[in-house]
Amino acid sequence: MSTAEADRRARATWSALVEPGDEVAGALVQACGAHDALAWVDAAVTGRPDWAALGAHAGTGGEVVRRRVSTALRRWAVRRPHVDADRDADAAAHVGARVVVPGDPQWPTGLDDLGTAAPFALWVRGDGLHRRRSVALVGARACTGYGERVAVDLAVDLARRGWQVVSGGAYGIDAAAHRGALVAEGSTLVVLAGGVDRAYPVGNARLLEEAVHTGGAVISEVPPGAAPTRSRFLQRNRLIAATARATVVVEAAWRSGAASTAHHAARLLRPVGAVPGPVTSAASAGCHRLLRDGVAVCVTDAAEVVELAGDVGADAAQAPTQVGAPGDGLAPLARRVLDAVPRRGGRTVDDVAVRGGTTHAEARDMLGLLELDGLVRRVGGGWVLEADEQRPG
Amino acid sequence: MSTAEADRRARATWSALVEPGDEVAGALVQACGAHDALAWVDAAVTGRPDWAALGAHAGTGGEVVRRRVSTALRRWAVRRPHVDADRDADAAAHVGARVVVPGDPQWPTGLDDLGTAAPFALWVRGDGLHRRRSVALVGARACTGYGERVAVDLAVDLARRGWQVVSGGAYGIDAAAHRGALVAEGSTLVVLAGGVDRAYPVGNARLLEEAVHTGGAVISEVPPGAAPTRSRFLQRNRLIAATARATVVVEAAWRSGAASTAHHAARLLRPVGAVPGPVTSAASAGCHRLLRDGVAVCVTDAAEVVELAGDVGADAAQAPTQVGAPGDGLAPLARRVLDAVPRRGGRTVDDVAVRGGTTHAEARDMLGLLELDGLVRRVGGGWVLEADEQRPG
Repeated sequence: MSTAEADRRARATWSALVEPGDEVAGALVQACGAHDALAWVDAAVTGRPDWAALGAHAGTGGEVVRRRVSTALRRWAVRRPHVDADRDADAAAHVGARVVVPGDPQWPTGLDDLGTAAPFALWVRGDGLHRRRSVALVGARACTGYGERVAVDLAVDLARRGWQVVSGGAYGIDAAAHRGALVAEGSTLVVLAGGVDRAYPVGNARLLEEAVHTGGAVISEVPPGAAPTRSRFLQRNRLIAATARATVVVEAAWRSGAASTAHHAARLLRPVGAVPGPVTSAASAGCHRLLRDGVAVCVTDAAEVVELAGDVGADAAQAPTQVGAPGDGLAPLARRVLDAVPRRGGRTVDDVAVRGGTTHAEARDMLGLLELDGLVRRVGGGWVLEADEQRPG
Repeated sequence: MSTAEADRRARATWSALVEPGDEVAGALVQACGAHDALAWVDAAVTGRPDWAALGAHAGTGGEVVRRRVSTALRRWAVRRPHVDADRDADAAAHVGARVVVPGDPQWPTGLDDLGTAAPFALWVRGDGLHRRRSVALVGARACTGYGERVAVDLAVDLARRGWQVVSGGAYGIDAAAHRGALVAEGSTLVVLAGGVDRAYPVGNARLLEEAVHTGGAVISEVPPGAAPTRSRFLQRNRLIAATARATVVVEAAWRSGAASTAHHAARLLRPVGAVPGPVTSAASAGCHRLLRDGVAVCVTDAAEVVELAGDVGADAAQAPTQVGAPGDGLAPLARRVLDAVPRRGGRTVDDVAVRGGTTHAEARDMLGLLELDGLVRRVGGGWVLEADEQRPG
């Protein structure tokens, strides 16, 4: 077995041996390499930990490190006999999954920002991993029709702009986001909390298959067969945040997994967006909280999401072009003269000057300019508004 | 006439002579006092400006000041013959209005922050001016049912908490805000763009009367009879912003008067809030823009408005108390143990340790604690979840 293959196999074993986000394991693998760290653990759980050998790799680190590793070793010892790398590899092959590790071209380098909490390996179905431009759309399972519509619309528009949509494959906002990307024939990435051989939730099984077979991917940091437990859901959220360039929460209750994903992204200094909704909707309370707390920026359409996630300058959202009322954007003096012109009857230049608070010359000049703009016209010896000029109501 | 009365009369005259926000007039009045400034102008518009006399009051200021005052004088000269302080006083008396000037106990001292753009005087109907705790609720005339409901609800709740609701008396959000305050038997302040003798818009005439007769007030910086022109609407917004301790925009289009009020408040370093709404609603686009631009803080209920406008610390909004799911807030280790306990069938401590990634001792101890919390129970030789513990869905 080559060194690279040994590393891959060791990382796959680590992903089965410890719970996601185990930072003691992460530190050990960083210090010693996945293979040597695993060999050291295997020796330690059957005999006595060889602290001298560890020190040669990782520095002594003192009593605290030794105590933390000792505690971790006792946990790993419990599960070690149940980990079977061959069995996991067979199960992966059975569903067409492969193991992707750091250094592979498809490894999402954003995951490295997680430091010692980075996953050891990813179990991957599909080719669509590590798109340069990807954005996470996350939110509540118990979403409203409004949230679902916004999630689909955002995902469609993002996919059309060439962005990959990342989400967690759950019911509600997650599913709407994946579905929108697929509708627009874009690529979507599903990050699962359990094994990639388990369609979870079962109702989204077809959606997950579609993601795999349309240039996207379904990934997990735990091996095939692993159950999607609640603590793994919470850990999974950090992968979504670290994989995507930005995270947008579409709908979320006051406390929610989506909000936790947003906080993960914020800690990684990734841009975070939140879609506002009616204040009367509990499904938007988490989004509004993120806005209030300054964790998230308010985003209302795909252009604003792209501005958030994209390159500074190149991806700025445009202000909507709006048809203004006649006379919008006039200078204050012109505005005052226009205000002094009646809708009916006609008013002399002198009278306009008195009412507008201008000199006679200013009133005369401004009336001429306003006439050129089609906002006023002459009647007899006076001036009157053109028919379509409106007073504020 | 006492000096105070002369000042009051001169300020009332200034309010008729110049357009709102005339900073040349404001600077002149600040430098010379309202009465002397008016006397100087009266002499100047009939003869030649006495620059030496002005210099004695205001310093020479050089050529630029002289040029600006000269231009302004030509404007004031046009309107001066049409200003009649007695006629305005009679018209005010006719509708029970009085003139309030700086130094009066009822003068809203917040207006002084406007500097040379501060109003010279206020024409006031009703006693409810200058409440210490007042907040402006502003928004679109063309509001939605959602915006109207939110405005009424906020105003009711703010009034019940003893806050005065300030707004512009227009249709839509303004009217809803005033109405909500009145419904809750609170005080409301209407800031008009035209004279206080003119109910504008006419459809809100009864609302304005109610505001006057229920401990609130209707105010304006222009004298009775003055028309509510568009430029005066724009200037009026600065009064709303400067009178209230904070300004909250409930609904506003992308460009709108309400947004201009918010910007005025921001420039005065007053707190600004915006109520979010559906991103699919054009009536909320201005609010979302204020949030995106960082001009406004997201507010969703009266408690958050009070936190924004109130005293730091004393008025902080409470986080909603929410009934969590069983097991919320567990430490990670307990969470993992709980996750490893099945819903049916029972699982041994050893098996729970393997699945949860814990030592045998940790699993045993945590199961005991979880049992005390009523989350798990013993069955035969193993452990099972209590019926109401749910898996994430």
